[in-house]
Amino acid sequence: MGVGEISEMKPSAQCGKEKGSSPLGPIGVFDSGIGGLTVVAALRHLLPNEDVFYLGDTARVPYGGKSQETIERYSVEIGKLLLAEHAKIIVVACSTSSALALARLRESLPVPVIGIVEVGAIAAVHASHDKRIGVIGTKATISSGAYERAIREICIGAYVVSSACPLLVPLVEEGMFEDEITHLALKRYLDPLLYRNIDTLVLGCTHYPLLYRAIERVIGSRIVVINSGKNCALAVEKVLKSSGMAQGLRSGGLRVALTDTAEGFLRVAGQTLGLKIEEVELLGL
Amino acid sequence: MGVGEISEMKPSAQCGKEKGSSPLGPIGVFDSGIGGLTVVAALRHLLPNEDVFYLGDTARVPYGGKSQETIERYSVEIGKLLLAEHAKIIVVACSTSSALALARLRESLPVPVIGIVEVGAIAAVHASHDKRIGVIGTKATISSGAYERAIREICIGAYVVSSACPLLVPLVEEGMFEDEITHLALKRYLDPLLYRNIDTLVLGCTHYPLLYRAIERVIGSRIVVINSGKNCALAVEKVLKSSGMAQGLRSGGLRVALTDTAEGFLRVAGQTLGLKIEEVELLGL
Repeated sequence: MGVGEISEMKPSAQCGKEKGSSPLGPIGVFDSGIGGLTVVAALRHLLPNEDVFYLGDTARVPYGGKSQETIERYSVEIGKLLLAEHAKIIVVACSTSSALALARLRESLPVPVIGIVEVGAIAAVHASHDKRIGVIGTKATISSGAYERAIREICIGAYVVSSACPLLVPLVEEGMFEDEITHLALKRYLDPLLYRNIDTLVLGCTHYPLLYRAIERVIGSRIVVINSGKNCALAVEKVLKSSGMAQGLRSGGLRVALTDTAEGFLRVAGQTLGLKIEEVELLGL
Repeated sequence: MGVGEISEMKPSAQCGKEKGSSPLGPIGVFDSGIGGLTVVAALRHLLPNEDVFYLGDTARVPYGGKSQETIERYSVEIGKLLLAEHAKIIVVACSTSSALALARLRESLPVPVIGIVEVGAIAAVHASHDKRIGVIGTKATISSGAYERAIREICIGAYVVSSACPLLVPLVEEGMFEDEITHLALKRYLDPLLYRNIDTLVLGCTHYPLLYRAIERVIGSRIVVINSGKNCALAVEKVLKSSGMAQGLRSGGLRVALTDTAEGFLRVAGQTLGLKIEEVELLGL
């Protein structure tokens, strides 16, 4: 399928619309790349009965750095591809997309849409004792101020300090989880937050949970780390149960589709996260 | 213009075809991002009478890491946009695209196409005394083996050793030209080449000339560094002169168009390279 055909996908989207409300549909998860597999791992762990369809827009990764208009357009295109797969709920695992395109996605898609930013903000406010919260993410996520806004909507007096960490995604994608260069980069990004006495740190990018141990070495064990993957899974569970859309006793499956090949990191992520990824479908976006 | 309309651009491409052979057209330069401005700087310096039209596909950067099929499709789309601007010659400043899509571009475009890989390979063979040549580039460029092939086509006995350097583009785009992290990353990438006694190093990515001083600190002054930007400009000069397409005495201009906004690095690159970039056009690809 050529990119030009995306706007012609209305029949499939309609199809998703009709079947989107069936408990038989999968949980649709999307991210700009492979990072959202950390969310998939959490979903598979918490909701083993559910099918999960993961779509990584690897042809156009990274979203971070692109304009809001572009991110909205890409996100809606991907959301419609998930509808065509009959997704009954959609998890926006890409922080950049969740930060910049969530409203547009909710307007455009007829199924519940869970955004990783909202979920992370709620978890951070609950976890933080002093309401001094640090957020790290891509440039686009941080400069959008989305986490800050989402946190302040829940707790108006919260102190939020953010740091854009553009080197972390490439470091993760190189598998450099335990590396002197990664340690130096993390110190550069995290020290200014530590000076400001945060007691909670939101990992505002799905790649970052793979750096958990390296991050803990820099910040110590005193600070609570919010990994939004787990919180996304809890939010999905809540929606599915309250709407009668949860699957019964059965073993759910995982399908992974990408818009371009992504050899190295897919292998790294799959192994690190213990995900069984048998076949990767390729969608020509 | 939506992406879907790209395949409908034949009328413009035809227009480029008719006018492509006029000396009045600009030199068209493209790269996946902003890095190709290092080539533009060399062209402006060597050929000040010529107009230059630069197109950076910032909406879909980086090309490195994407599949050959995707890179070919993107490259031809961008080439046709340059034809629509009446480009009389096209410089593929993106190493990834030059490595993977040059044949397809030459088939598809009716004007001369200069690829930065070929040009760099020729310069390296000429410069190398012992014919022991190192090449650094993005993952896609290095794994394509394009520099190695191009060098061996010219000098079958040359010893070529390559190193993929995925962290360097993000480091450059952060403006971290003189930084401990950059130094460590460069040592990691370059030491294995030094152990193999190269006497010439090809900077196989347009971003890398901005790290020239940091690279020299790691490799010393004994090794010749091939900056393909200058060599591209020389190749363009040769084609324009031999085909009677060079501009006469006048002052050429520079137009820059991007497929998405790219604030930070455009400023950094413009300043560092001494390029006067007044207005940036935005093409909705």
